[in-house]
Formats: sequence, C-alpha cells, structure tokens
Amino acid sequence: MFSASDTAHMAEALRLAELGRYTTSPNPNVGALLVKDGQVIGRGYHKQAGGPHAEVFALREAGSDARGATCYVTLEPCSHHGRTPPCADALIAAGVSRVVVAMQDPNPQVAGRGITMLRSAGIRVELGLLEQQARAINAGFLSRMERKRPYVQLKLAASLDGRTALANGDSKWLTSDAARADVQRFRAQSCAVLSTATTVMADNARLNIRTEQLLQSVPTLENGQLRQPKRVILDRNGLLDHKLALFAEGGEVLLCVSNIENKRELPNIARQIHCPLTSNAQFDLTALLEHLAVRESINTLWVEAGATLAGTLLQLKLVDELIVYLAPKLLGSSAQPLAVLPEFSVLNQVPQLSWTDVRMVGADIRLSARLS
Amino acid sequence: MFSASDTAHMAEALRLAELGRYTTSPNPNVGALLVKDGQVIGRGYHKQAGGPHAEVFALREAGSDARGATCYVTLEPCSHHGRTPPCADALIAAGVSRVVVAMQDPNPQVAGRGITMLRSAGIRVELGLLEQQARAINAGFLSRMERKRPYVQLKLAASLDGRTALANGDSKWLTSDAARADVQRFRAQSCAVLSTATTVMADNARLNIRTEQLLQSVPTLENGQLRQPKRVILDRNGLLDHKLALFAEGGEVLLCVSNIENKRELPNIARQIHCPLTSNAQFDLTALLEHLAVRESINTLWVEAGATLAGTLLQLKLVDELIVYLAPKLLGSSAQPLAVLPEFSVLNQVPQLSWTDVRMVGADIRLSARLS
Repeated sequence: MFSASDTAHMAEALRLAELGRYTTSPNPNVGALLVKDGQVIGRGYHKQAGGPHAEVFALREAGSDARGATCYVTLEPCSHHGRTPPCADALIAAGVSRVVVAMQDPNPQVAGRGITMLRSAGIRVELGLLEQQARAINAGFLSRMERKRPYVQLKLAASLDGRTALANGDSKWLTSDAARADVQRFRAQSCAVLSTATTVMADNARLNIRTEQLLQSVPTLENGQLRQPKRVILDRNGLLDHKLALFAEGGEVLLCVSNIENKRELPNIARQIHCPLTSNAQFDLTALLEHLAVRESINTLWVEAGATLAGTLLQLKLVDELIVYLAPKLLGSSAQPLAVLPEFSVLNQVPQLSWTDVRMVGADIRLSARLS
Repeated sequence: MFSASDTAHMAEALRLAELGRYTTSPNPNVGALLVKDGQVIGRGYHKQAGGPHAEVFALREAGSDARGATCYVTLEPCSHHGRTPPCADALIAAGVSRVVVAMQDPNPQVAGRGITMLRSAGIRVELGLLEQQARAINAGFLSRMERKRPYVQLKLAASLDGRTALANGDSKWLTSDAARADVQRFRAQSCAVLSTATTVMADNARLNIRTEQLLQSVPTLENGQLRQPKRVILDRNGLLDHKLALFAEGGEVLLCVSNIENKRELPNIARQIHCPLTSNAQFDLTALLEHLAVRESINTLWVEAGATLAGTLLQLKLVDELIVYLAPKLLGSSAQPLAVLPEFSVLNQVPQLSWTDVRMVGADIRLSARLS
C-alpha cells in the first residue's frame, strides 16, 4: 500500500513535526509535506498553539502547485474550528488529490472526522504509515487524550551506588554542568515540571529554563521568548515564601493544595489548584494527574523531586519513563536512596524497567528506561 | 620520527597481541609484525607461556625475507633465556634492519637490555610508538611488574537503584543470561578470580569458565582446553566443604588462610596460601594482593564478592576498575547496598570514578569505570 518513497516522505514530515517540540504545548506536534511528481513542493510544522497548523504552512509554500499533490501529514488533519479553521477544508480547497496520514487524531473533536471530510470530497486518504513513530512524537498529547493523564518522566540523579545525597543531605554538585544543562532541555520540552515545596526550599529551586543556557539551541515562541513550563508544586502546608526564586521568573506556578484558600495572597505568577487527599491523608496523585491533564491541558510532566515523591509515583505506576543521570561517584551505603520503596520479598515483585537509551552527558551517564 | 604507515603497522601488531589475551597468563600479550618494502611478510603473537614469543612466529613466517625488514613489536624483545631463547638474538640472527618497539619491558630481567642488544648489533631501534595503547593491553602485567600487585577489576551487579539483592538476600536472577555470559568472558581473561567463602557457599559458586558457553568464541590453549583462572577464596574459618562445586572443576583454588595448617586435608585442586591479618584482625588485603602478584604471578584479578569485600577493597583504593551490570529493576530502599562504605560528610570525600565504557549486554547495561 505504501511505497518506499511514501515512507521517506512521511519520515521527513515526522522530522518537521519534531521542530515544534519546544513550543507547541499544549497542542500536538505535527509535520506536513506536499509532494507532486516526486518533488517536495511544501513543508510545514505546527509551531505554536494559536498559530497555523502544519498543513497550512505546507499549502502556503506550495501555492497553486498544491492541486493534484499528495500531502503527508503526521496527524489527521483537523475538522473543527478551533483558533484556526479546519485543515481538512484547506486541503480540499487547495485541490490535493491524496492525503497520507500517519495516525488518526485521538482528540474527540476530530477522531476520524477529518479523514471523513477529506474522503467525502473525493480525496484518496491512506492511514497508518509510520504510526508508531508518529505516536512516539506525541506521547504526551496521546497520554492526555487517551489516558486523561500526562506522560510522566521522572528525573533522578544518583551515584553509581544509587544514592542521591549524603546522609547529611549534601548533593551539590553530584552531577556535572552538562547534566544540569541537559535537564534544562527536558524541562523546555515539557508542559510542566512537578516538584514539592520541600525540594524547592532545599535548593531555592527555580525549575524554569535559564534562557542564557538554551537560547542558542532551542526554538523560541513567535515573540522570541522560550516557552516556559508551568511549575506544579505540592505545597500542602503553604510553606513557600513569596521571596523564593521560584516566584521571580519563569512559567506559571500551580500550588497544589487540598483546600483552596480564596483569601490567600499569592505572587502574580502563582495560582492554587485543588488536589484531593487519599484516605491516608496524602495528596491523591492519580487525581492530581487527571486534573493536570483535563483541566490544565498538560501533556508532559517532568518530575524533579526527592526520594519520597519518586517512590510514591513509582508505586502508583504513574511513571512512564525514568531519566537517570548517573554520576561517577560512590556515595556510600549510608547515603540517601534513589526512591523510597517498600521492602519486596521476591525479585519478581519489584518494579521492572526496560532500558530505552544510554549515553554520556558530560562526565555523567544518562540512562533512560520505560516502566514495564 | 614515526610515519603514518609505522603507526598502522604497530596498530596491527597491537591487534595481534590482543589475540593472546585469553591464554598468555602470566606472560604479557605481545604482537609482532615484519614489514619489508611496505609489505607485511610476517605476523606473530604470544599465545601461551612456555610457547614461542611473538617475534619468533613472525620470523618463521617471513623466513629468509626477514633480512633487511622492519619489525614492529608491542613490547621490547626479550634479552634473557627463559623457557625460550632471547628474541633479541633471533631478530639479530634474522638480519632485520630496524625494530620499532611500542614500550620497554618493565620486567627487571629485560628492562632495556633487549633494546641494547639490538642496538649493539647495529639495528636501528625506535621506541614509544603507540606506547599508551601497548600499556593498556598489558595493564595486568605492568601492574604486577611496576606496582607488585595485580590489576584489580571489581565486578558488581545491581539494580538501577544500586542494590544487589533484596533485604532477604534474594538476587536470583538479578541480571540477564547475557550479562552472566559476559562475566564468564571477563573471568576467562583474568589470571585469577577473588571471592569469599561466604559468597561461594551462598550460591555454590564455581567461579570458573563454563566451557560450553565460551568454547565457540574464546581461544583455547595448545591442548584445546580453555585456560581456567585460579580461584582465590578468602576462607579464614575453613568453612568450605570439599563437596562444593568450586572443587569439582576449573582452575586451582587458593584458599587464603591466616595460618597455613599443614595437616588440613584439601581437595587435589586446592592449596592454602598465607595472608597476614591487620591490627583489627581482618585479612590484610594489601599484603594479599602483593602475595598474589609476587608469589603467584597473578597479573589480573577479577573480584566477584559481596558488598563487604567490595567496600573494603574500594576503601583501601585497591580497585583499578569497576565493571557494573545494571539491571533494569528497582529493588527498593530496604534492599542490600552495592558496597559497604562509611558515611561521608562532604561530597568531595567520596570515591570518584570516571566512566570508561557503557554498553547494552542483553537486557542489562554494563558500565565500566576507572577509580580516580
């Protein structure tokens, strides 16, 4: 059904889609390629929510040549009037004769309607080319749409012996500058960063993107600014002082509380969000993640926290991927653990992972693993 | 001084040297290449202690063509009558006109005398081409000669959170079949394996090379057998039952005791060696390593033991290299530590490593690090 050149064109559309990965939040990443007589005549990707979709950029480039062309698009063209008109209409109006779609849009506002519109207009539509790769690019968006929770990446930094800090808490600097810069890059790709008041206070952490480090290599929004992730902070006891660096700059701060206090004074950048408690009076993290997906449109959540939150998320099976920076050090057997987890009595009960990536980052090794 | 083709020829000699790495113990690995008019006319490597040296094989292949040739050799040709006559004499007799030597032999029986003999015979000798690479190939032999202790590789297997076993001791099977086969390969390259009676009894460990797994890919001795490493077991309290698998097959077992008991009955394969105690009544591991190098000619020692011995060796700075198999699992914060080490109070006191290699081995990741 698909030729080798179809596959190559769709691979190029996927590459285009990836160009938006620092800026499209909360929208999905989409790339589009218009091809006529074997020649690429238009290219586009979705850059920013509210801005034109990938197909529109590709059609603009192709102009009247689009008539009779094939459009390769990594996600089903939209069928609804959002902040921009439906892409399916634009493709029909331009007279393309064939549309190859990597995957259907799981957004209930689309969900096959875009394809139906195209077919009703007599356009040949083929679905499923490089679908797996297209899904991987939008793991966060798909997680929000299909599971009503963000795709969760848990970041950890440890010594070779799996320790995050000395017994006295000292962990500065466990990992290298390069590892910390790499973390900035992951934050920049995430819709939000999740942490706790304890962690924020311990390091006076900003959890934002330091522009000076990344501006050279990371695409900015149309206004020239980096898109800053929201910061979601578990702050049950309202511990955070307004003078903390967290409130000085960066994306919005969502303070998770169990009771929204309407009278509480907050920095301009901050807002309270409600998170229910479990029967043992802890934050209900499952409910929180649903809230973040459904109410805050958070596709991808980057977690930077201590061993307690890490352990809880792992036990609740709320972690999709672990990103671990392994420093070439041994902190010793009395140092602090990577994640607080219960005592297991048999090896086949323990959390099982599968390695997905390993590479050097400065003096450290970065390991990626999927929870399985 | 050295041309690009000199470098390429020495690199080839180094590659030849490596062919002996499973069999030359306790001799160094040496490769030799004879080149005349740009053509390689002889190749050789040292395969087995007692057998011909690399230069001899190369001279045999070249025959009378050796006259006027250049010999590239990774270690200074020997000057002494050991189990074979001096290679320096053989090169002189064959009439080679130039010898390029990667490094001087640190063996006090040679130590420059081979080079002197060649020069006295009118041969042009050049020293130091790819010396660092030549040293790396013989890290064990050089350690024995220069430091009077073996090159020590500490093997560990842990979960991502740095745990070797559950709190109840369960660790079967933490790592994959592929990782265990990889361990066999390291054992096969080592002169000896060091472990403890506790570890041997816990797993009824053989610590040998299982022929069936490796015979396909590992060079054997002239008799067709794999060279089995010696097994050095810390057995202070004479705990090891003669029926253990350790005594059923494999290389010689050296039982480390603090007092040699002449009347003790031992399996044929076993022998006692004396190791003094420290002031706090522990084995003096520094003394043991010197004994193993000087008295037992052990170049490379592969350590497979528990967290206590691992920690002690690390604290005494007796480990040259860590080889860690990281299983894609989390054993939890009550599971057993990688190495028993004291509590450190500042991060710059902890053992510092540098990563030297990282790769997938089956479902696990193998990390190599040098102690720095």
